[in-house]
Amino acid sequence: MPQQDLSLLTDFYQLTMMQGYFFQERFGEKSIFDLFYRSNPSGSSFSIAAGLDQVIDYINNLTFTEESIHYLDSLGVFEPAFLDYLRHFKFTGDIYAVLEGTVIFPNEPIVKVIAPICEAQLIETALLNIINHQSLIATKSARVNWAAGDDMVIEFGLRRAQGPDAGIYGARAAVIGGCSATSNVLAGKMFDIPVKGTLAHSWVMNFDSELEAFRSYANQYKASCFLLVDTYDTLKSGLPNAITVFNELQEQGTLPERYGIRLDSGDLAYLSKKARAMLDQAGHEKAIISASSDLDEYLIRDLKLQGAKISLWGVGTNLITSSDCPAFGGVYKLSAQIVGDTVIPKIKLSDNNEKLTDPGNKKVLRIYDKETGKIKADLVTLVHEHYDESHPLIIFDPISTWKTSTLKPNSYTIRELLVPIFINGTCVYESPTTFEIKAYCQTELATLWDESRRLINAQIVYVDLSEELYTLKHTMIKASRVSF
Amino acid sequence: MPQQDLSLLTDFYQLTMMQGYFFQERFGEKSIFDLFYRSNPSGSSFSIAAGLDQVIDYINNLTFTEESIHYLDSLGVFEPAFLDYLRHFKFTGDIYAVLEGTVIFPNEPIVKVIAPICEAQLIETALLNIINHQSLIATKSARVNWAAGDDMVIEFGLRRAQGPDAGIYGARAAVIGGCSATSNVLAGKMFDIPVKGTLAHSWVMNFDSELEAFRSYANQYKASCFLLVDTYDTLKSGLPNAITVFNELQEQGTLPERYGIRLDSGDLAYLSKKARAMLDQAGHEKAIISASSDLDEYLIRDLKLQGAKISLWGVGTNLITSSDCPAFGGVYKLSAQIVGDTVIPKIKLSDNNEKLTDPGNKKVLRIYDKETGKIKADLVTLVHEHYDESHPLIIFDPISTWKTSTLKPNSYTIRELLVPIFINGTCVYESPTTFEIKAYCQTELATLWDESRRLINAQIVYVDLSEELYTLKHTMIKASRVSF
Repeated sequence: MPQQDLSLLTDFYQLTMMQGYFFQERFGEKSIFDLFYRSNPSGSSFSIAAGLDQVIDYINNLTFTEESIHYLDSLGVFEPAFLDYLRHFKFTGDIYAVLEGTVIFPNEPIVKVIAPICEAQLIETALLNIINHQSLIATKSARVNWAAGDDMVIEFGLRRAQGPDAGIYGARAAVIGGCSATSNVLAGKMFDIPVKGTLAHSWVMNFDSELEAFRSYANQYKASCFLLVDTYDTLKSGLPNAITVFNELQEQGTLPERYGIRLDSGDLAYLSKKARAMLDQAGHEKAIISASSDLDEYLIRDLKLQGAKISLWGVGTNLITSSDCPAFGGVYKLSAQIVGDTVIPKIKLSDNNEKLTDPGNKKVLRIYDKETGKIKADLVTLVHEHYDESHPLIIFDPISTWKTSTLKPNSYTIRELLVPIFINGTCVYESPTTFEIKAYCQTELATLWDESRRLINAQIVYVDLSEELYTLKHTMIKASRVSF
Repeated sequence: MPQQDLSLLTDFYQLTMMQGYFFQERFGEKSIFDLFYRSNPSGSSFSIAAGLDQVIDYINNLTFTEESIHYLDSLGVFEPAFLDYLRHFKFTGDIYAVLEGTVIFPNEPIVKVIAPICEAQLIETALLNIINHQSLIATKSARVNWAAGDDMVIEFGLRRAQGPDAGIYGARAAVIGGCSATSNVLAGKMFDIPVKGTLAHSWVMNFDSELEAFRSYANQYKASCFLLVDTYDTLKSGLPNAITVFNELQEQGTLPERYGIRLDSGDLAYLSKKARAMLDQAGHEKAIISASSDLDEYLIRDLKLQGAKISLWGVGTNLITSSDCPAFGGVYKLSAQIVGDTVIPKIKLSDNNEKLTDPGNKKVLRIYDKETGKIKADLVTLVHEHYDESHPLIIFDPISTWKTSTLKPNSYTIRELLVPIFINGTCVYESPTTFEIKAYCQTELATLWDESRRLINAQIVYVDLSEELYTLKHTMIKASRVSF
């Protein structure tokens, strides 16, 4: 994140609640908050966690400058003693999180914050903002890259992103989800992502002829040459001119190892097949056909099904905004208070069933099929619960509780997903590079059954509650209801 | 924008093209680019221009730091002479733009850049990014606020925005489009927007009882008190407890002028009517009922049609992401070269008809009906064309050219929309405050006929080409086609 003061990147009610706690001298009291989400974007059966590295930066730099204090003072709502507390604010709590690039499912904590209530409350909004955004784009990217198969996908969306950060951190998330490069130079610099791109229509229009424009570009850039062929007419003008230039380069012995064309309008299936034939006939079987123009996972899948001869995809708007589902519904809910050594579980009921929360200090166990390494289910339990892989394990659906499944001893393995990131305010975790996270994400995606990767109507992966957690939750629901 | 180096907030191909022009010694040659968009978001018949103030900041601060130069050097693509040019880069061109808050329509220039080709090319991506984002959110906000009528709408979306900037600049754009306040404290500070909010579910859950939580909050904040009533059960628990606290405040003589409740789940029409009745019966006719929970313009309209007793709307996700259309399709196209004193019009053809561009150095005239002050049509003309309101004016649709309309002398008025912002690299325009822009936007919205403000299937407003521009365009199309 930019090194500016982001202490005020929060909702106003966080500050009014903080002051409330402060004057009730409850500011030392610890609370546990879970960050989780309720449904996957874009009809996916899973999501990809992303944004943790920026959360770490945010927490490490979280102090209120005098300018911010002065602004808060000017609102006439905050008392001097509270402002003085903010002046010396530092995050002192613990944060556990699922690592970036991990496959995640609804209703399981992906971040857990254990901190004095004021601190836990302040950071809610920024954590949600950062993780919601990057997890959204990483998930969309995983879908787009899945549709593209082994083809390379480049993130092209900066101009349509929702502001500079959306372009910059969106490019990072797109790489985590599987993209290989970006057009965004600043993101390239910040996250060491290869930057790609050649020329725009304006280049072609700036020359007296398309041929001259292509020739000029190709002679300038000898390492790689992709010519945009649709400024005037793809098949009648762009392709013939590109082939002329490729032939000239070949004669000069300067044809680059990687070269080809970019299609940016028209019917990409039809044009790519025609272009392939023209290139092949001219002896340019190695020329790569790349395409851009309102691509998403569905269009890429359909183009490939129709035999489009495209092997390099530039995906812009629909990826950088996750256009069919532009928000990731992460929420941040109180699950317990800690008073002294006692954990007091808390629950929110709500008029909407799906807004019920899971109480207590929890952990998330991922259960894999030992033979295939695929995910069987996730199990949310209380932290003190212990499971032994050499024992049978009975899991059940928390809504349709009669749906049970018994895993045989030694047929499964268990992995705990929440990893310590901050302990007592100190960061204890070092983020991998963006490409290391991408590589880890590929191994994560391989733990999903194919049925759960399908773009449409994918098989859901169950997130179960342990019997102890289920019993705690339903006891608390009943206890609350009788009080009305 | 943050005071960081945003010179690299651009697509890689801008830099490769710049270097190409640089070594051809064409870097002094001027070009004209138009920034325009092709269709309105969310089925609207219009959009609201926004983002210009951040474009001005970007241009004013546009220099390459040594760190950026070093990064570009590391890519192995750029020559020392070109990097040295970047080291001394400064924008020296002219920028004309439609003012923020102006009602705009597809296919008319909303920004025009006249600058040396390298400069015009570099700034393309950032201009599109900033203007696309803020115009999108301002447009969505205008729709949401239209649905809310005279009710106040507060922007609540930071946690679901696509990164920090999307939350910050999205809040600004939401105010331009009609919102009255935001929950986003940093946006409040940066743009002098009132910040609002009271308490979250976690506050209620952190107390032993809801009543105690409400009482505690109300006693802390005496100026305004909105209690969130859906943590356990809106009608059985939240409302009765809120009324108890309002009664206590009344007895103590500390009931604030502005007070009420917030509904955040359940059926808002049903609950608000029940809540209104309960509050009224308890003598709290003045208590305001506010609501949040997945609101957008359609739901607000339907709730109001069903007699929901809500007069304050907190709109989050759907506004801050423009969820039903999360990208504004602004593009930036070369329209002319200037060589010496000669303007050479340029056109892009493309395989998609709607991607044809309008050539030449243009201006945008808005034609109002003199009697009503409503917009008759916009007319895009070449800059040298002159129109006299005392003469009849014949306008025609540029697609269905047989559709003509003759405006009688003195029955219409003409206003030029593009205003000089930068001349020779110097900013000649001072942005109003965000609330001044909001006020201007309200007057702009009043120039639309009601038929064009409808949320669904709204009447389009025509953007016509002058006969001279139309003739130029079609002559150039024909001339290009014969060369294939």
